[in-house]
Amino acid sequence: MRHLLLVAHGSRREASNEEVRQLAARLKTLAGARYADVSAAFLELVEPGIPAAIQCCVERGAREVVVLPYFLSQGRHVAADIPAQVQPKQAEHPQVCITIAPYLGAAEEGIAALLLELAQ
Amino acid sequence: MRHLLLVAHGSRREASNEEVRQLAARLKTLAGARYADVSAAFLELVEPGIPAAIQCCVERGAREVVVLPYFLSQGRHVAADIPAQVQPKQAEHPQVCITIAPYLGAAEEGIAALLLELAQ
Repeated sequence: MRHLLLVAHGSRREASNEEVRQLAARLKTLAGARYADVSAAFLELVEPGIPAAIQCCVERGAREVVVLPYFLSQGRHVAADIPAQVQPKQAEHPQVCITIAPYLGAAEEGIAALLLELAQ
Repeated sequence: MRHLLLVAHGSRREASNEEVRQLAARLKTLAGARYADVSAAFLELVEPGIPAAIQCCVERGAREVVVLPYFLSQGRHVAADIPAQVQPKQAEHPQVCITIAPYLGAAEEGIAALLLELAQ
């Protein structure tokens, strides 16, 4: 029972947050049976935050939670802030395996190929 | 003679700006003969800004400049701030065709596929 949590920064512009929720819905469709659920969480400004979203996964029976940072650069948010919000939930639920996947910008070749398509 | 300008927000964290410059270099390699040059520019905080980078393309002989926003969401920066910096340069150089390509987050299916790979 594996859950995927797409984590974005969170924006004061609600349409941007909605783009993230729609992306999570698209991931859920694309992933098929790979994840019992896919949902969105936000580092700042917008609910649900990361701890609340992890808690929700656990209460719904997740044995594994994959936190997927929707960020382009390996900045403080990715390197420090997201892990700092994940670690206490891991300590609280040692029976659940919570991992943090590479951030989006780490997919260098894939991003470069997408950008060249967009530029056409 | 077409130039590609990868436009990122610009960060106080120099390593993030360097990631963008390296991505521009990767695009140049991948694009082969499609662009005479590929370079990085920044909306805020970091040089070169968008107008200076466009000016540089023009002075180096560009007849066409494709501005490619390296942004995940269709926020104010993409919808208003980048066009506002591009338009005066277009007016200044009517003989050059300056276009703004879709922002990275617009490549919805491609982004979703990349995210699922990263989550594995």
